[in-house]
Amino acid sequence: MSDRYASFAHTGPGRALVKRLGLPDPPRLRRYRPGDPLIHGSVRLNAAPGGRLRESLAKLLGSAGVEISANTEGPAGVEGAAGVEGAERGAATAAGPVRHGALLYDATGITDSTGLRALFDFFHPLARALHPSGRVIVFGTPPESCTSPREATAQRALEGLTRSIGKEFGRGTTAQLVHVAPGAERAVESTLRFLLSGRSAYVSGQVVRITPADVPEVDWARPLAGRIALVTGAARGIGAKVAEVLAADGAQVVALDVPAAGDALAEVANGVGGTAVQLDLTAPDAPVRLAEHLADRHGRVDIVVHNAGITRDKTIGRMNPDWWDQVLEVNLSSQERINEVLLDRGLIPHGGRLIAVSSIAGIAGNRGQTNYATSKAGVIGLVHSMAPLLAERGITINAVAPGFIETRLTARIPLMFREAGRRLNSLAQGGLPVDVAQTIAWFASPGSTGITGNVVRVCGQSVLGA
Amino acid sequence: MSDRYASFAHTGPGRALVKRLGLPDPPRLRRYRPGDPLIHGSVRLNAAPGGRLRESLAKLLGSAGVEISANTEGPAGVEGAAGVEGAERGAATAAGPVRHGALLYDATGITDSTGLRALFDFFHPLARALHPSGRVIVFGTPPESCTSPREATAQRALEGLTRSIGKEFGRGTTAQLVHVAPGAERAVESTLRFLLSGRSAYVSGQVVRITPADVPEVDWARPLAGRIALVTGAARGIGAKVAEVLAADGAQVVALDVPAAGDALAEVANGVGGTAVQLDLTAPDAPVRLAEHLADRHGRVDIVVHNAGITRDKTIGRMNPDWWDQVLEVNLSSQERINEVLLDRGLIPHGGRLIAVSSIAGIAGNRGQTNYATSKAGVIGLVHSMAPLLAERGITINAVAPGFIETRLTARIPLMFREAGRRLNSLAQGGLPVDVAQTIAWFASPGSTGITGNVVRVCGQSVLGA
Repeated sequence: MSDRYASFAHTGPGRALVKRLGLPDPPRLRRYRPGDPLIHGSVRLNAAPGGRLRESLAKLLGSAGVEISANTEGPAGVEGAAGVEGAERGAATAAGPVRHGALLYDATGITDSTGLRALFDFFHPLARALHPSGRVIVFGTPPESCTSPREATAQRALEGLTRSIGKEFGRGTTAQLVHVAPGAERAVESTLRFLLSGRSAYVSGQVVRITPADVPEVDWARPLAGRIALVTGAARGIGAKVAEVLAADGAQVVALDVPAAGDALAEVANGVGGTAVQLDLTAPDAPVRLAEHLADRHGRVDIVVHNAGITRDKTIGRMNPDWWDQVLEVNLSSQERINEVLLDRGLIPHGGRLIAVSSIAGIAGNRGQTNYATSKAGVIGLVHSMAPLLAERGITINAVAPGFIETRLTARIPLMFREAGRRLNSLAQGGLPVDVAQTIAWFASPGSTGITGNVVRVCGQSVLGA
Repeated sequence: MSDRYASFAHTGPGRALVKRLGLPDPPRLRRYRPGDPLIHGSVRLNAAPGGRLRESLAKLLGSAGVEISANTEGPAGVEGAAGVEGAERGAATAAGPVRHGALLYDATGITDSTGLRALFDFFHPLARALHPSGRVIVFGTPPESCTSPREATAQRALEGLTRSIGKEFGRGTTAQLVHVAPGAERAVESTLRFLLSGRSAYVSGQVVRITPADVPEVDWARPLAGRIALVTGAARGIGAKVAEVLAADGAQVVALDVPAAGDALAEVANGVGGTAVQLDLTAPDAPVRLAEHLADRHGRVDIVVHNAGITRDKTIGRMNPDWWDQVLEVNLSSQERINEVLLDRGLIPHGGRLIAVSSIAGIAGNRGQTNYATSKAGVIGLVHSMAPLLAERGITINAVAPGFIETRLTARIPLMFREAGRRLNSLAQGGLPVDVAQTIAWFASPGSTGITGNVVRVCGQSVLGA
């Protein structure tokens, strides 16, 4: 990682200087290594009265070997009131409060804004009770599935809470809201595991929506075993890391990039025991050639990661028309054509996964990136518009939207802007390609049947948005 | 306005210093004064082939006395290609290109991402052709109303374009995307007028959605004549300004605030020729007492502006439980109760308007504001969940989400944070209470029948978001 400031801040003298000057203090993030437990320490779990999820969450945590700490077996909702006092005491003595790896709250029972107080009662005494890189997850009901405006209002309000907690807790804590539609209780496991683990190190402040779905048995150590995964733009950067992570999760990877990147591509493909395809995706016959290649070699493709993307930055008044066309073509139009051909030919089976790469620029827009932001906003439209159609075929489609990720490209950004991009997020640092790759692997998991039409930012809860 | 930096930057020596040091250069924004033309200079209007809106837009502009500049009567889509060259020349000579007050593009005809090039062709040559405080408005189709994923993708992509343009053009330019549902072509006028005029000075980077609706005749000079408007929290700040603007637009204002603010409230009410109601909205009998007051005095209330709101900032670990309750109660729960009683008693007639005040903190979350952000996120849920139900009764509900607005409250923010809040937006300055009030007046207009379920930020396109 080329973040020299963070490296320095992690040294002894660096720590001292950071503290004395009140500089940003990027914590070391807990990242996944094979064999790691899902989370360090116990999990605190509670629910508002009437919650749908508490029992199934407890069961999932149990089967994942996660310890649920005491105090959660009392009558739901009672713990809070007593907990407040306990915490005030805890904070006062400050000696060594019990620390948890994660705080989980099932808020699905809240049907009215006055019931939101239960969340205060839960989090107030636990605000300093998390280990570094701890996890906050609030589970709610998607507002559109609520039965009254009052309930929908209270459930929507949870977003303000989790996003604020993400900005408050610090020390690598991430905070998310998971909206679980009624009937989707059993589809939560892949998301719970992802969010608790170090795989989601750089994902914070997000809202994930889970819809009812049949979830197959999953081998959580190698969830993608037996799956064919196409990764475009795989020769370097985020794409190379996606190939690596999907392969580590068991997938057989087809790594694709332009012929000019052939050597780097071959290295990636060999490194992950996969195959390489050299193809310019913008060529008119690319979709057909790709489809034929996949049909011939594998008979299908289970996972398609549309990672290939380019930037050609200039303000629109100074932009060459070719730069507009190239960016739109690579980042959006070619992706649409490829999806259509692969789907038309039935190459993406039931259980298939389409995964696109959007960007914070596609959400917020960006100066000097009208072309890029337009293409990446289009990717969001692609995900939203295709999801209901693909659901009929048992295929999901989702997107990641990376924020500031440390790559060859960001290393070229002038220092001041690079520093701003790195620090203006709740984790005070840039993300790594592996953070994007792990988020893609979560979408790709056979356990993620209930996740479709989601756009999840991998941005450390960047302040940038719209 | 207490923005001393901006005041200084507008002086002769200030200008020089700002330029030499590359400091933020907050432009003087064009703000509405009665009798002003909608916009200074002519409007450039074009459309992608097949656009639904070009003709109706031209008609609306004509009837509003806005001059449409030449070059727009050629075959749609042709202008672009020729325009590129013209602009390159224009930029090259740089002497005195023709300047426009606004650039309007009807993108409803675009059914595929490859068609987005038409927007480049339109905006590329015109990037420097706007007067200060110019306007960019792109009209599209709401993705959910599109007939194919390709169309929905292209239409969704427009958000990336307008948001990037808002960040690029500078000099007080605002840029918006207006999604006009099929059949809503005639409901566009109030929005077109608002966005072109100085009333929308601090609104940029927004997406407005217009749904089909019958629009009555509107007296644009006094659109609210004959309407009864309730404004809560009206004693000062944004609320007092809302009372003033609605009254200037012709409404009879009922100004409400807590008894402790009685003197200031009386002054506001007298100033606008309205009446004052002293009431603590969180009192259990407040909704009934308010309903009875309105029934007795006016027999109805056409416009309800839920502006009353408080902050009680602390991190959740250090927050007093009362502070949680107070903020949720004032900002959200009391609002829900009042709506219910007013609606149950039939006091809000067909054509009624409910307008809530959310906040950027409700969208992005904020450190030290778990209570406030939760309440303001709930307000968004309230708007979204009530809109379909109220539509059956011919009532609209919308929210403004202010960013950094110069008030008594923001004047207390420590200087460095205040400066960051002020400058981190596309207009490099804080907004004024009048900017929020004018946005509320636009929602309140009888012409805004087709606008419901919208949350529009008044934030100068703040970088903050989610």
